[in-house]
Amino acid sequence: MQVLSASQFFLVSDVLSLCIAAFAAASLFFWFGRSQVSSHYKTALTITGLVTFIAFYNYWRLFDSWDATYTVVNGVISATGVPYNQIYRYTDWLLTVPLLLIELILVMRLPQAETISRAWKLGSAAALMILLGYFGQVSGANDSAPRLIGGVLSMIPFLYIVFALYSGLGEAIERQPETARGLVRLARNLTVVAWFFYPIVYFLPFVVSFDGGTITTVIQIGYAVADLTAKVIFGLLIYTIAVRKSEAEGMKA
Amino acid sequence: MQVLSASQFFLVSDVLSLCIAAFAAASLFFWFGRSQVSSHYKTALTITGLVTFIAFYNYWRLFDSWDATYTVVNGVISATGVPYNQIYRYTDWLLTVPLLLIELILVMRLPQAETISRAWKLGSAAALMILLGYFGQVSGANDSAPRLIGGVLSMIPFLYIVFALYSGLGEAIERQPETARGLVRLARNLTVVAWFFYPIVYFLPFVVSFDGGTITTVIQIGYAVADLTAKVIFGLLIYTIAVRKSEAEGMKA
Repeated sequence: MQVLSASQFFLVSDVLSLCIAAFAAASLFFWFGRSQVSSHYKTALTITGLVTFIAFYNYWRLFDSWDATYTVVNGVISATGVPYNQIYRYTDWLLTVPLLLIELILVMRLPQAETISRAWKLGSAAALMILLGYFGQVSGANDSAPRLIGGVLSMIPFLYIVFALYSGLGEAIERQPETARGLVRLARNLTVVAWFFYPIVYFLPFVVSFDGGTITTVIQIGYAVADLTAKVIFGLLIYTIAVRKSEAEGMKA
Repeated sequence: MQVLSASQFFLVSDVLSLCIAAFAAASLFFWFGRSQVSSHYKTALTITGLVTFIAFYNYWRLFDSWDATYTVVNGVISATGVPYNQIYRYTDWLLTVPLLLIELILVMRLPQAETISRAWKLGSAAALMILLGYFGQVSGANDSAPRLIGGVLSMIPFLYIVFALYSGLGEAIERQPETARGLVRLARNLTVVAWFFYPIVYFLPFVVSFDGGTITTVIQIGYAVADLTAKVIFGLLIYTIAVRKSEAEGMKA
């Protein structure tokens, strides 16, 4: 196990706990918001709340798993030998990443056939990206060849998604009504920027040593910030877009 | 560890447990109340309930952490060596203090641009205040220089918030309709009075010794009273304001 100080251990605990509360609160906020948008945007808000709800669940699991890895007694930290199960992150992403793309497509209120086709393509690509990353992650040590191959392969759907968000969906964004266009563009850009954090962390061990308490602490906090950005802040943008478009369209709930 | 008597230990446990129930009940009350106010005030009540919900979660964590610090067997109390994690208070405040200011702004129903600008300014100042206090809190012993510096720095956003509540927002309060003005003023004043408790506790160890069971017990109960006041009683004022204004405006739900 890495050499972690007691204060680093508690810092990660506290950040995981903050995420649990923030994700749960976000879900409730989005679901209560359903009554404040027109029927066309209710499903987008349902799914926005599901994403943070799934994250709430998985962060609870991460918190408990982290808590089991160390004990601190009279200020002295010792590893219990129980591993920290980071795979909860992958089981989270496998569900939430396709849903995040679907909530963005839904709030755009495209023609039905276009919604279904784009949701299938982007959703499947996102699931494939996470699965390939998962197989890489579990197949070997932090700097092993199978892990590298899984990561490189998962970059293919990743780059396809980024391309699709700027080409096909990009054109659809430019057709959004004036009141929402800037916010939809911002939501799309925020997603892409936040998502770049994940492959960076994945590939980092091939460049620098991943042992040591400081890097562990930085990565756990980095994931938390990236998840809060990609799910809660992104979700607040989706909520704002749904409210503005409902108002602009005369809010026939 | 401090020398705590068994009865002091149980007193703090019981107060923490009372808070868990009170915060959960308050959330449900505010959320049920959403259907009794006009659409303009629903978001204020959603957020009022989220503040007590986040407090409910963090008091549950505080209760479990407190419970792990001591055992009482056959009337004899002994410290387990596991620390009491007070940082749950900071992770709570980091989310709830900005939200408390936002619920006050939302219930005032100011023009949209003014709402957004005031929410951003007060919310960011509140988050900065808590973060500086947090860094002070974790950086050293109860009477160390870094802790003093963190505390003094966090007083800058604190005083800015108090100033803003009485100058800029104070003017906006005077523009509130007759039926609500007194209550909004009261909510503002209650916030400021309740909030003064927190820096007093923070700076107290620089004046008197912080060891001993009595001071620990007094501080835990003091925090509980301050949190119940700033979140539940404040929330009840927000609820009353929302109901009165909905009635005065003809309640077009």
